[in-house]
Amino acid sequence: MSGNEKTASPAWLQNLKFDDKGLVTAVTLADSDGAVLMVAHMTAEALRLTLETGRMTYWSRSRKSLWVKGETSGNTQRMVSAHLDCDGDSLVFRVVEQGDKKACHEGTRSCFTRKFEKGKWERI
Amino acid sequence: MSGNEKTASPAWLQNLKFDDKGLVTAVTLADSDGAVLMVAHMTAEALRLTLETGRMTYWSRSRKSLWVKGETSGNTQRMVSAHLDCDGDSLVFRVVEQGDKKACHEGTRSCFTRKFEKGKWERI
Repeated sequence: MSGNEKTASPAWLQNLKFDDKGLVTAVTLADSDGAVLMVAHMTAEALRLTLETGRMTYWSRSRKSLWVKGETSGNTQRMVSAHLDCDGDSLVFRVVEQGDKKACHEGTRSCFTRKFEKGKWERI
Repeated sequence: MSGNEKTASPAWLQNLKFDDKGLVTAVTLADSDGAVLMVAHMTAEALRLTLETGRMTYWSRSRKSLWVKGETSGNTQRMVSAHLDCDGDSLVFRVVEQGDKKACHEGTRSCFTRKFEKGKWERI
Protein backbone atom coordinates (compact mmCIF):
# COMPACT_ATOMS: atom_id res chain seq x y z
CA MET A 1 0.00 0.00 0.00
CA SER A 2 1.25 3.45 -0.85
CA GLY A 3 0.02 6.73 -2.20
CA ASN A 4 -2.69 9.04 -1.01
CA GLU A 5 -4.10 7.56 2.19
CA LYS A 6 -7.00 9.98 2.17
CA THR A 7 -8.48 8.29 -0.86
CA ALA A 8 -7.75 4.72 0.20
CA SER A 9 -10.75 2.75 1.40
CA PRO A 10 -11.06 2.96 5.19
CA ALA A 11 -9.84 0.03 7.29
CA TRP A 12 -13.35 -0.95 8.39
CA LEU A 13 -14.38 -1.35 4.76
CA GLN A 14 -11.52 -3.65 3.83
CA ASN A 15 -12.40 -7.34 3.54
CA LEU A 16 -16.07 -6.47 3.07
CA LYS A 17 -17.82 -7.90 0.04
CA PHE A 18 -21.15 -6.37 -0.81
CA ASP A 19 -23.55 -8.21 -3.09
CA ASP A 20 -24.96 -6.93 -6.39
CA LYS A 21 -27.43 -4.80 -4.42
CA GLY A 22 -24.66 -3.34 -2.25
CA LEU A 23 -25.64 -5.32 0.83
CA VAL A 24 -24.10 -7.60 3.42
CA THR A 25 -26.03 -9.84 5.81
CA ALA A 26 -26.19 -8.88 9.50
CA VAL A 27 -27.05 -11.43 12.18
CA THR A 28 -27.89 -9.80 15.50
CA LEU A 29 -27.57 -11.67 18.79
CA ALA A 30 -28.42 -10.58 22.32
CA ASP A 31 -25.15 -10.26 24.18
CA SER A 32 -26.87 -11.33 27.40
CA ASP A 33 -27.73 -14.87 26.34
CA GLY A 34 -26.79 -15.28 22.69
CA ALA A 35 -30.38 -15.38 21.44
CA VAL A 36 -30.64 -14.67 17.73
CA LEU A 37 -32.82 -11.58 17.57
CA MET A 38 -32.95 -10.85 13.86
CA VAL A 39 -31.29 -11.13 10.48
CA ALA A 40 -31.16 -7.98 8.37
CA HIS A 41 -29.00 -6.26 5.78
CA MET A 42 -26.55 -3.38 5.71
CA THR A 43 -25.16 -1.08 3.08
CA ALA A 44 -21.63 0.24 3.57
CA GLU A 45 -23.16 3.41 5.03
CA ALA A 46 -25.32 1.44 7.49
CA LEU A 47 -22.26 -0.51 8.57
CA ARG A 48 -20.19 2.66 8.96
CA LEU A 49 -22.87 4.27 11.12
CA THR A 50 -23.19 1.12 13.22
CA LEU A 51 -19.44 0.87 13.82
CA GLU A 52 -19.01 4.59 14.48
CA THR A 53 -22.04 5.27 16.65
CA GLY A 54 -22.47 1.85 18.27
CA ARG A 55 -26.18 2.08 17.41
CA MET A 56 -27.32 -0.77 15.19
CA THR A 57 -28.26 0.70 11.82
CA TYR A 58 -29.56 -1.44 8.98
CA TRP A 59 -30.78 -0.95 5.44
CA SER A 60 -34.49 -1.42 4.97
CA ARG A 61 -34.97 -3.22 1.68
CA SER A 62 -38.70 -2.51 1.70
CA ARG A 63 -38.37 1.21 2.44
CA LYS A 64 -35.07 1.53 0.59
CA SER A 65 -33.61 3.67 3.34
CA LEU A 66 -31.26 3.61 6.30
CA TRP A 67 -32.96 2.21 9.35
CA VAL A 68 -31.66 3.13 12.79
CA LYS A 69 -33.11 0.22 14.69
CA GLY A 70 -35.58 1.41 17.33
CA GLU A 71 -35.55 5.04 16.23
CA THR A 72 -39.35 5.02 16.30
CA SER A 73 -40.12 2.25 18.79
CA GLY A 74 -37.37 3.03 21.27
CA ASN A 75 -36.13 -0.54 21.00
CA THR A 76 -32.64 0.46 20.00
CA GLN A 77 -29.70 -1.93 20.02
CA ARG A 78 -26.27 -0.96 21.32
CA MET A 79 -23.44 -2.80 19.62
CA VAL A 80 -21.13 -4.77 21.87
CA SER A 81 -19.06 -6.58 19.26
CA ALA A 82 -18.92 -7.21 15.52
CA HIS A 83 -17.44 -10.21 13.72
CA LEU A 84 -16.91 -10.70 9.99
CA ASP A 85 -16.91 -14.06 8.22
CA CYS A 86 -14.36 -15.60 5.89
CA ASP A 87 -16.22 -14.49 2.76
CA GLY A 88 -16.61 -10.93 3.99
CA ASP A 89 -20.31 -10.87 3.20
CA SER A 90 -21.86 -11.70 6.59
CA LEU A 91 -21.50 -10.11 10.01
CA VAL A 92 -22.48 -11.19 13.49
CA PHE A 93 -23.27 -8.46 16.01
CA ARG A 94 -23.75 -8.92 19.73
CA VAL A 95 -25.94 -6.17 21.16
CA VAL A 96 -27.53 -4.85 24.31
CA GLU A 97 -31.29 -4.70 23.82
CA GLN A 98 -32.83 -1.41 24.90
CA GLY A 99 -36.35 -0.10 25.40
CA ASP A 100 -38.93 -2.89 25.53
CA LYS A 101 -36.33 -5.33 24.20
CA LYS A 102 -38.51 -6.33 21.28
CA ALA A 103 -36.47 -6.65 18.12
CA CYS A 104 -39.37 -7.84 15.99
CA HIS A 105 -42.04 -5.61 14.47
CA GLU A 106 -44.51 -8.33 15.49
CA GLY A 107 -43.89 -7.44 19.12
CA THR A 108 -41.65 -10.33 20.11
CA ARG A 109 -38.10 -10.27 21.40
CA SER A 110 -36.79 -12.27 18.45
CA CYS A 111 -38.00 -12.51 14.86
CA PHE A 112 -37.47 -16.29 14.94
CA THR A 113 -40.76 -17.32 16.49
CA ARG A 114 -41.66 -20.23 14.21
CA LYS A 115 -40.13 -23.62 14.89
CA PHE A 116 -40.15 -26.60 12.58
CA GLU A 117 -42.26 -29.27 14.31
CA LYS A 118 -43.80 -32.36 12.75
CA GLY A 119 -43.41 -31.18 9.20
CA LYS A 120 -44.52 -27.58 9.55
CA TRP A 121 -43.67 -24.22 11.08
CA GLU A 122 -45.36 -23.78 14.45
CA ARG A 123 -45.47 -20.49 16.28
CA ILE A 124 -43.70 -20.78 19.62
CA MET B 1 -57.99 -24.59 1.57
CA SER B 2 -59.71 -27.06 -0.71
CA GLY B 3 -59.13 -28.96 -3.89
CA ASN B 4 -56.34 -31.27 -4.88
CA GLU B 5 -54.05 -31.58 -1.87
CA LYS B 6 -51.43 -33.37 -3.91
CA THR B 7 -50.63 -30.21 -5.83
CA ALA B 8 -50.76 -27.87 -2.84
CA SER B 9 -47.39 -26.62 -1.66
CA PRO B 10 -46.09 -28.78 1.18
CA ALA B 11 -46.43 -27.52 4.74
CA TRP B 12 -42.68 -26.99 5.21
CA LEU B 13 -42.66 -24.64 2.21
CA GLN B 14 -45.47 -22.46 3.47
CA ASN B 15 -44.41 -19.10 4.93
CA LEU B 16 -41.09 -19.30 3.10
CA LYS B 17 -40.11 -16.35 0.92
CA PHE B 18 -37.26 -16.95 -1.47
CA ASP B 19 -35.43 -13.99 -3.00
CA ASP B 20 -35.09 -13.24 -6.70
CA LYS B 21 -32.35 -15.87 -6.90
CA GLY B 22 -34.55 -18.47 -5.18
CA LEU B 23 -32.59 -18.34 -1.93
CA VAL B 24 -33.19 -17.90 1.78
CA THR B 25 -30.51 -17.12 4.37
CA ALA B 26 -29.43 -19.84 6.78
CA VAL B 27 -27.67 -19.04 10.06
CA THR B 28 -26.09 -22.11 11.64
CA LEU B 29 -25.36 -22.27 15.36
CA ALA B 30 -23.67 -24.98 17.40
CA ASP B 31 -26.33 -26.49 19.62
CA SER B 32 -23.73 -27.15 22.31
CA ASP B 33 -22.90 -23.53 23.09
CA GLY B 34 -24.77 -21.33 20.62
CA ALA B 35 -21.66 -20.30 18.69
CA VAL B 36 -22.47 -18.94 15.25
CA LEU B 37 -20.66 -21.30 12.91
CA MET B 38 -21.61 -19.95 9.51
CA VAL B 39 -24.10 -18.06 7.37
CA ALA B 40 -25.04 -19.63 4.05
CA HIS B 41 -27.96 -19.90 1.66
CA MET B 42 -30.55 -22.48 0.74
CA THR B 43 -32.78 -23.15 -2.20
CA ALA B 44 -36.15 -24.82 -1.57
CA GLU B 45 -34.53 -28.14 -2.47
CA ALA B 46 -31.63 -27.60 -0.04
CA LEU B 47 -34.13 -26.76 2.69
CA ARG B 48 -36.26 -29.80 1.90
CA LEU B 49 -33.23 -32.09 2.06
CA THR B 50 -32.10 -30.51 5.33
CA LEU B 51 -35.51 -30.91 6.96
CA GLU B 52 -36.06 -34.44 5.65
CA THR B 53 -32.61 -35.92 6.22
CA GLY B 54 -31.48 -33.85 9.19
CA ARG B 55 -28.19 -33.31 7.38
CA MET B 56 -27.45 -29.65 6.78
CA THR B 57 -27.60 -29.02 3.03
CA TYR B 58 -26.95 -25.61 1.53
CA TRP B 59 -26.78 -24.06 -1.90
CA SER B 60 -23.30 -23.14 -3.05
CA ARG B 61 -23.59 -19.84 -4.87
CA SER B 62 -20.06 -20.15 -6.25
CA ARG B 63 -20.48 -23.71 -7.53
CA LYS B 64 -24.19 -23.27 -8.29
CA SER B 65 -25.00 -26.67 -6.82
CA LEU B 66 -26.44 -28.33 -3.76
CA TRP B 67 -23.86 -28.64 -1.03
CA VAL B 68 -24.26 -31.33 1.61
CA LYS B 69 -22.12 -29.75 4.29
CA GLY B 70 -19.13 -31.96 5.11
CA GLU B 71 -19.76 -34.45 2.34
CA THR B 72 -16.10 -34.17 1.37
CA SER B 73 -14.45 -33.07 4.62
CA GLY B 74 -16.49 -35.26 6.96
CA ASN B 75 -17.46 -32.19 8.96
CA THR B 76 -21.16 -32.78 8.56
CA GLN B 77 -23.77 -31.00 10.64
CA ARG B 78 -26.78 -32.78 12.11
CA MET B 79 -29.82 -30.54 12.47
CA VAL B 80 -31.26 -30.26 15.96
CA SER B 81 -33.80 -27.50 15.36
CA ALA B 82 -34.90 -25.00 12.73
CA HIS B 83 -36.57 -21.65 13.26
CA LEU B 84 -38.06 -19.30 10.65
CA ASP B 85 -38.26 -15.54 10.99
CA CYS B 86 -41.24 -13.20 10.63
CA ASP B 87 -40.38 -12.34 7.03
CA GLY B 88 -39.96 -15.98 6.02
CA ASP B 89 -36.62 -15.31 4.36
CA SER B 90 -34.14 -16.28 7.10
CA LEU B 91 -33.70 -19.44 9.11
CA VAL B 92 -31.72 -20.30 12.23
CA PHE B 93 -30.50 -23.86 12.60
CA ARG B 94 -29.00 -25.41 15.70
CA VAL B 95 -26.74 -28.32 14.82
CA VAL B 96 -24.46 -30.96 16.22
CA GLU B 97 -21.00 -30.53 14.74
CA GLN B 98 -19.51 -33.78 13.46
CA GLY B 99 -16.07 -34.85 12.21
CA ASP B 100 -13.36 -32.36 13.10
CA LYS B 101 -16.01 -29.81 14.02
CA LYS B 102 -14.63 -27.24 11.60
CA ALA B 103 -17.42 -25.47 9.77
CA CYS B 104 -15.12 -23.12 7.88
CA HIS B 105 -13.14 -23.99 4.78
CA GLU B 106 -10.29 -22.02 6.37
CA GLY B 107 -9.97 -24.75 8.99
CA THR B 108 -11.61 -23.01 11.91
CA ARG B 109 -14.66 -24.01 13.88
CA SER B 110 -16.56 -20.87 12.90
CA CYS B 111 -16.37 -18.67 9.82
CA PHE B 112 -16.55 -15.56 12.01
CA THR B 113 -12.88 -15.24 12.91
CA ARG B 114 -12.43 -11.50 12.36
CA LYS B 115 -13.43 -9.12 15.12
CA PHE B 116 -13.80 -5.37 14.80
CA GLU B 117 -11.11 -3.88 17.04
CA LYS B 118 -9.79 -0.31 17.00
CA GLY B 119 -11.21 0.53 13.62
CA LYS B 120 -10.35 -2.62 11.70
CA TRP B 121 -11.01 -6.32 11.39
CA GLU B 122 -8.53 -8.34 13.43
CA ARG B 123 -8.20 -12.09 13.15
CA ILE B 124 -8.97 -13.73 16.47
